[in-house]
Amino acid sequence: MVIKKIAILFSGTGSNLEKLLADLHHKTFQHCRIEVATTICNRPDAQGIEKSRRYGIEPLILDHTQYANREAFDEALVHAIRASGAELTVLAGFMRLLTPVFTQNIKALNLHPSLLPLFKGGNAIKESFDSPMKVAGISVHYVNEELDGGEIIAQRCFEKTEGMSFEAFEAKIHALEHELLPLTVKNLLDRTYHES
Amino acid sequence: MVIKKIAILFSGTGSNLEKLLADLHHKTFQHCRIEVATTICNRPDAQGIEKSRRYGIEPLILDHTQYANREAFDEALVHAIRASGAELTVLAGFMRLLTPVFTQNIKALNLHPSLLPLFKGGNAIKESFDSPMKVAGISVHYVNEELDGGEIIAQRCFEKTEGMSFEAFEAKIHALEHELLPLTVKNLLDRTYHES
Repeated sequence: MVIKKIAILFSGTGSNLEKLLADLHHKTFQHCRIEVATTICNRPDAQGIEKSRRYGIEPLILDHTQYANREAFDEALVHAIRASGAELTVLAGFMRLLTPVFTQNIKALNLHPSLLPLFKGGNAIKESFDSPMKVAGISVHYVNEELDGGEIIAQRCFEKTEGMSFEAFEAKIHALEHELLPLTVKNLLDRTYHES
Repeated sequence: MVIKKIAILFSGTGSNLEKLLADLHHKTFQHCRIEVATTICNRPDAQGIEKSRRYGIEPLILDHTQYANREAFDEALVHAIRASGAELTVLAGFMRLLTPVFTQNIKALNLHPSLLPLFKGGNAIKESFDSPMKVAGISVHYVNEELDGGEIIAQRCFEKTEGMSFEAFEAKIHALEHELLPLTVKNLLDRTYHES
């Protein structure tokens, strides 16, 4: 059985991190077994740190405020990911803009809470909710130099219900995220050589 | 029981026309009974004409080639719709650009086979299919001066399946259209005075 290693980067509560760990870590699929080789966090006080520990993985803390610039921070990320042996990196609520130092060296995917190419950027949930559209959704995409602009890998959509509150809307977005992100990572990794 | 009259405009096969007639014509809902007061077609050879007749409605043929310009054609449309007593007009595969002569005088809604504001214009199905997005959908919107630019009333979305053919994609679009258009018309009309 082939072992496929992934790295998970996070900044906050780690709800997507937790779902990835629960669904994928040390799990065997049709063509591979997935291992979370490392989790990396840029905020020393992130709630997700405790969640990672619960799965037996001590997160690597790379505090971005301790680096001279974005490039130096990204170099540290690249070094840590390479050292872990991860072939795929998952950004699970990782709130840092990445430079080419990262994007040109690491194959990574990101979760974005809108139907890309609509509502790129940091206010996607609010903008989707406020928009005249009657549907909304989420996207998993490859990370490249352009913010939220890399190739789309998977999307989920839903219809806004009449009178839906922002809280209900946001909860729906997060529920879809927790479903789609582990599934997409699994689908990307669990292929035979000829399919990949 | 309040009677609400609608007009339906079409140009082609009339599959959405037929669904509107089947679901709404002479049907009683919670707060109203809906009647299709007139059907209007701009092509004397359209297949939809026979479908309208099957529901006992002889379509009014307004052949756009017989009018000096778009405005003159639109005047004839406006006149016919007003004479019918319809309070709402439904464009069901009606393939004519409309001028302000129409849009400023008639409350009309249109069906567009994409998730507006994405993929406006005449190639929406092909463009949605070819796009890097993994979801697609349809929109019902009010008609204004801007092509496919009026207020969105309702949308439905779906996820493209892996290896989905264009034919299967198009069939899915049409299936959603047949579901959403009559439902949206019904929801717009079947309200009490205070809700409307």
